Amino acid sequence: MHIDIQFLPSPPHANLLSDRVVVVMDILRATSVIVHAMTQGASEIIPLATVEEAFRMAKAFPRAFVILGGERKNKEIPGFDLGNSPKEYTAERVKGKKLILTTTNGTRAFHAVSPGKEILAGSFLNIGAIAQRCLESNRDVFIFPSGDEGNFSLEDTLCGGMLIDLITKKETRQVSLTDASYSAQILYQRFKDNLSEAFHLSRHGNELVNRGFEDDLAYCAQIDMTPLVPVFREGVIRAK
Amino acid sequence: MHIDIQFLPSPPHANLLSDRVVVVMDILRATSVIVHAMTQGASEIIPLATVEEAFRMAKAFPRAFVILGGERKNKEIPGFDLGNSPKEYTAERVKGKKLILTTTNGTRAFHAVSPGKEILAGSFLNIGAIAQRCLESNRDVFIFPSGDEGNFSLEDTLCGGMLIDLITKKETRQVSLTDASYSAQILYQRFKDNLSEAFHLSRHGNELVNRGFEDDLAYCAQIDMTPLVPVFREGVIRAK
Repeated sequence: MHIDIQFLPSPPHANLLSDRVVVVMDILRATSVIVHAMTQGASEIIPLATVEEAFRMAKAFPRAFVILGGERKNKEIPGFDLGNSPKEYTAERVKGKKLILTTTNGTRAFHAVSPGKEILAGSFLNIGAIAQRCLESNRDVFIFPSGDEGNFSLEDTLCGGMLIDLITKKETRQVSLTDASYSAQILYQRFKDNLSEAFHLSRHGNELVNRGFEDDLAYCAQIDMTPLVPVFREGVIRAK
Repeated sequence: MHIDIQFLPSPPHANLLSDRVVVVMDILRATSVIVHAMTQGASEIIPLATVEEAFRMAKAFPRAFVILGGERKNKEIPGFDLGNSPKEYTAERVKGKKLILTTTNGTRAFHAVSPGKEILAGSFLNIGAIAQRCLESNRDVFIFPSGDEGNFSLEDTLCGGMLIDLITKKETRQVSLTDASYSAQILYQRFKDNLSEAFHLSRHGNELVNRGFEDDLAYCAQIDMTPLVPVFREGVIRAK
């Protein structure tokens, strides 16, 4: 098995994706929100790149069945129901509903990797289940941290590093790593006993603290809260 | 002082470079060759992106004053005088001569960062002098690892991490780091007592070993062999 991770979120060449399991990670906070909203009963999630697309998509369904969620630069979007904080996505708000989500980094990342064979939403909350799915797939793995406004993101890379660490410890076939995937694993090993420290070091983590979302850092650093594996297919994320 | 490092070698936006000291790193082996050739008395070095440009440039000077050096995918270039192994660049071959150099990754990197205020060639061989120059410049620093055929390079990033480590320990003003520069420093700290181990882990290092250049890994891992600071200005590298 070959595992690669791309450190900057420019759209990868399609030949890096075809026949691979692709894992999208936006720890603070889109993929953590996606996983959490599914645990609360959201029926499906439609990740979209722009606010305009989100409003247009919402009009296609009866209003009572749809939740509009997301942020731009960590601020609420006028006219939306929810922001991008996992704790807003309670069962009361999302159970049985279609969640239309647009965020600065994470939701566009799913579209950037659409040529992938199987596209998963990964986070610390479901990292063990994601590792298990990668092991069962018998495919090479491509990890796509969605980054921080086009830049390298520490927290996304640590989650990628944890996935690499879990897979290499359990895979019985030989695992080949790239310079980037070795490095992500080493960074994870440095912070594995204190993910919250890393989140507070990161630029994006810092900004969330300054905007009053410090609780989200602790929430998103929790490991294996759920066995859910969200799969992105034909524009929609559903539980596998 | 702000220090950033870019993990993939796509040309950076000019606004990331202007007013900054930019340090280009291609440890295996272009910037190590540049530094070494200068210690052996090369008068100046002209880094060019293509083999065609190198032949054209060479014709502009009397043949006896010029050395053509470089590689493509770690193989010799037909018609060139030297390859890309530091040990070939002896005083006997290069003293007083103009070295025209073209390599797969490193030489094009200088042109990718040409909007930088001051552009330096960094390597482990001269890392202390590069750190000193950055400290004296009173400017922000942008580190540009030239990568491995467009991909993240472990050895270049470790050298960037060592530069960050040296600067943060000596700078008296506050130093701000990005997620990427924190990560490069952590990776350097992991391997600082055994750079050779890291070079053997890296894809490019492995390929050099397989092609019979293992000695180059040990040579390029030596720290502070020289106080030379090569500066790239108007297409030419000269000692500061």
